Amino acid sequence: MSAQDIILKELLDASHLQGIEALLSWDQETYMPEGAGAARAEQIAYITGLMHAKLVGEPLKNALEELIDLETGELRIMTLKERETRQLKEIWRDYRQQATLPAEFVTELARHASVSQQAWTRARKDNDFAFYKPFLTKMVQMQQEKAKYLATGTTAYDSLLDQFEPDMTSEKVSKLFKEIRVRLVPLIKNISEVKHRVNGSVISKDYDTDKQWAFGMDMLKAIGFDLKTGRQDRSAHPFTTSTHPTDVRTTTRLQENDLKAALLGTLHEGGHALYEQGLPVAEYGNPLGQTISLGIHESQSRLWENLVGLSTPFWRFAYPKLQAKFPEQLRNTDQEQFHAAINRVRPSMIRVEADEATYNLHIMLRFEIEKMLINENFPVEELPQLWNEKMEEYLGIQPANDAEGVLQDVHWSFGAFGYFPTYTLGNLYSVQFFNQARKDITGLNELLARGDFAELLKWLRENIHSKGRGRKAEELVQELTGEELSAQPFMEYLEEKYKRIYSLS
Amino acid sequence: MSAQDIILKELLDASHLQGIEALLSWDQETYMPEGAGAARAEQIAYITGLMHAKLVGEPLKNALEELIDLETGELRIMTLKERETRQLKEIWRDYRQQATLPAEFVTELARHASVSQQAWTRARKDNDFAFYKPFLTKMVQMQQEKAKYLATGTTAYDSLLDQFEPDMTSEKVSKLFKEIRVRLVPLIKNISEVKHRVNGSVISKDYDTDKQWAFGMDMLKAIGFDLKTGRQDRSAHPFTTSTHPTDVRTTTRLQENDLKAALLGTLHEGGHALYEQGLPVAEYGNPLGQTISLGIHESQSRLWENLVGLSTPFWRFAYPKLQAKFPEQLRNTDQEQFHAAINRVRPSMIRVEADEATYNLHIMLRFEIEKMLINENFPVEELPQLWNEKMEEYLGIQPANDAEGVLQDVHWSFGAFGYFPTYTLGNLYSVQFFNQARKDITGLNELLARGDFAELLKWLRENIHSKGRGRKAEELVQELTGEELSAQPFMEYLEEKYKRIYSLS
Repeated sequence: MSAQDIILKELLDASHLQGIEALLSWDQETYMPEGAGAARAEQIAYITGLMHAKLVGEPLKNALEELIDLETGELRIMTLKERETRQLKEIWRDYRQQATLPAEFVTELARHASVSQQAWTRARKDNDFAFYKPFLTKMVQMQQEKAKYLATGTTAYDSLLDQFEPDMTSEKVSKLFKEIRVRLVPLIKNISEVKHRVNGSVISKDYDTDKQWAFGMDMLKAIGFDLKTGRQDRSAHPFTTSTHPTDVRTTTRLQENDLKAALLGTLHEGGHALYEQGLPVAEYGNPLGQTISLGIHESQSRLWENLVGLSTPFWRFAYPKLQAKFPEQLRNTDQEQFHAAINRVRPSMIRVEADEATYNLHIMLRFEIEKMLINENFPVEELPQLWNEKMEEYLGIQPANDAEGVLQDVHWSFGAFGYFPTYTLGNLYSVQFFNQARKDITGLNELLARGDFAELLKWLRENIHSKGRGRKAEELVQELTGEELSAQPFMEYLEEKYKRIYSLS
Repeated sequence: MSAQDIILKELLDASHLQGIEALLSWDQETYMPEGAGAARAEQIAYITGLMHAKLVGEPLKNALEELIDLETGELRIMTLKERETRQLKEIWRDYRQQATLPAEFVTELARHASVSQQAWTRARKDNDFAFYKPFLTKMVQMQQEKAKYLATGTTAYDSLLDQFEPDMTSEKVSKLFKEIRVRLVPLIKNISEVKHRVNGSVISKDYDTDKQWAFGMDMLKAIGFDLKTGRQDRSAHPFTTSTHPTDVRTTTRLQENDLKAALLGTLHEGGHALYEQGLPVAEYGNPLGQTISLGIHESQSRLWENLVGLSTPFWRFAYPKLQAKFPEQLRNTDQEQFHAAINRVRPSMIRVEADEATYNLHIMLRFEIEKMLINENFPVEELPQLWNEKMEEYLGIQPANDAEGVLQDVHWSFGAFGYFPTYTLGNLYSVQFFNQARKDITGLNELLARGDFAELLKWLRENIHSKGRGRKAEELVQELTGEELSAQPFMEYLEEKYKRIYSLS
């Protein structure tokens, strides 16, 4: 076998293990009996250990060393095509990252992530931060330790961020966030002064959750989610995972008195799922069959959730169907009123239920807090208080309890520090991509209004999904749109949109 | 680490892999999207390969060799306690079995089992034996090959049987089956002459499947199935699996017009599940934490299904509850009539729905057919015809199509040849155990009639479940009942029971 063949074989094995780990975790969050938690943590730890061993093992290392200098990343052979070079560079990057982490640490982290996520589920249900505290404390310590091993960034936090969004730094994020904030805060203030212009009460009437589920499934199918290679279930916190591009699973959370949360959450996860289903199966196992970064992943979910799911054309298609499902509740609301209601801007407690404007403030406060936890050893026991203060500072409201405050998100429980900024990066990318799609697809609005999402999906498939991890996030946006990653298009989109909805001057 | 510690560590790792494989297979039969079949087969093959590598790997082999002669099984150290000796002998037996199988063969067999089971599911749904034929043909060949590797029996079939029921042979099975048949055939004939004495029509009225599910769940909980460490789902063919004693999963199949199939199937799987939930967690990973044999496993399922679930005391408890669930359908049927109806003896197509008497004829015909396939190269394409002829010979009826004929059982699709006899062995064991329990537990009938199943479960836990694989099946029955495995108690039970129900002379 050639070095290249050995590399692909080892990575394919690692991908089997990763797919299996995804099923173990999916099951943990959906169907696993409560009492199986300890055993499941052992299974996940064991399989993660095997995966790590594969990724840093001698066969892969030796084969890689034939082709590339493991220290410098300099190519040792010059006959590679561009495609192979990109592939090899990404494999090398992954190898370097894995090789910094000791095997016992990887296994222990996986075990703790499983245990801690289960503790979070219980703590959130019981509104019991004290119960969760020791799990989170240990997780923060382990992430600090992980950052030391990775050592890719100038700060511990940057090393963690880089795992999710390669080459991104806190500095760049802060700069973008500042550009957003300087325009977003006045925008939200302007809206709040005329907030009576939009009545959002129709969203929080009573909506039977089975019917919400059925409507959500209809929309998932409409946007192109393939039920032959995917499924949807319920979970405490919505997520998408994939055991293979032919087995992509989303979850949703339904609430009787909130039509928006479930529907937009469903479209959000659907966007993630379309990306996973669109990856090239022929490249399964190597970077060219993988997603680029979480920022790009979030660009896909936020695009379907917001740029499609909160748009006027979408509701021209979807609203008559929704009215047919809930004739009583929606009888006295016309399409324009509904569109305004579902777009209402109002500071609220829960990130995943926030409007497109205030959403980014939720991200900014998390970004600040997680930097404090990771870089400054901010004490975990003071986290609820810090959270509430930041909510007051950023959104002018305070949670009534920790369940709707610091306990609302699952991410930290399984160790995802440095993940949150990618949501706002995703918002920025999504608008840049969508603007480009609008240029490339004639009459996109008309297509959406007819419920024809195929052209848009095709555009995303061709330009993003099918390319795998063949380019960096910022390269992709440059290549596709001719622009750099920027807050400008996003803010223009928001300002223009709310100007219309709220008749701002 | 001592040799013993190394052995336990390696076996624990193998058990993690086995538990993970169980989840992959469970998911395949319950929730996996259809299009994920090929990827799932790869995942299962990969994990099975890892498990095999673990079980025949150098660490285990070398540690084992310190303690026992790998060829003869003679102990090398004399300081072991009896418990440790039993444990070691079983580990050695497993090692010998695994070590005969080449790694590539194990992986390929696991892959084919997954693919073939998926093909069976489709073939059964579409009543399409021709589609399934190549998969089954390959599976028969692979099982013949496996038998050659194992080479524990005097025939290929016996080598396969020995995997499921250690030390059992076709000869012993044939002898027992003959003893059963010689009394069973006249019994069934006697019953058929007075068949009008039992009206079974109440069983096949329309019963809402959601309510059937709810009643089945109530019964599962009543007999002691712990939902904190288990769950029930639906599948094409009911089964029980376990990723760990704290995560035991059963499935059931519900039909509108058949009250019996779902309810008794649920109790059957519940019996398997109680065994798995009752295994000693402290011994997880080694033989003392594992089940003895499939015959003993089936004794547990058949005990709860038949000796409890088809008994008069059980229906004194359960019938009022069933009537409350289905007041219209059961208004004009009293408890005695219902008990007779659910016990009606009548040759029928589907094994899992058969009465306790004819059930064993279904097993006998499968035993004959699978011996012909494995030992005599009987051609798979002639299997449907053979099946139908044997049905005529044994039960006097012929299936209308292959879906209710040769395609009805899942077992052969995943390679379980030599499994079927264990159902009838389970019937024999179950009666021997239940007779003993009746002696040991004062007023057992009264307890069952009150819906108090705790004493019976406690008896099974103490005498069977908690002992793991500490003794052979036949040792266990000897130890517990003072008798050898025998068809006598089973036939007495049947004769006595049907004498009452059918007022036989």
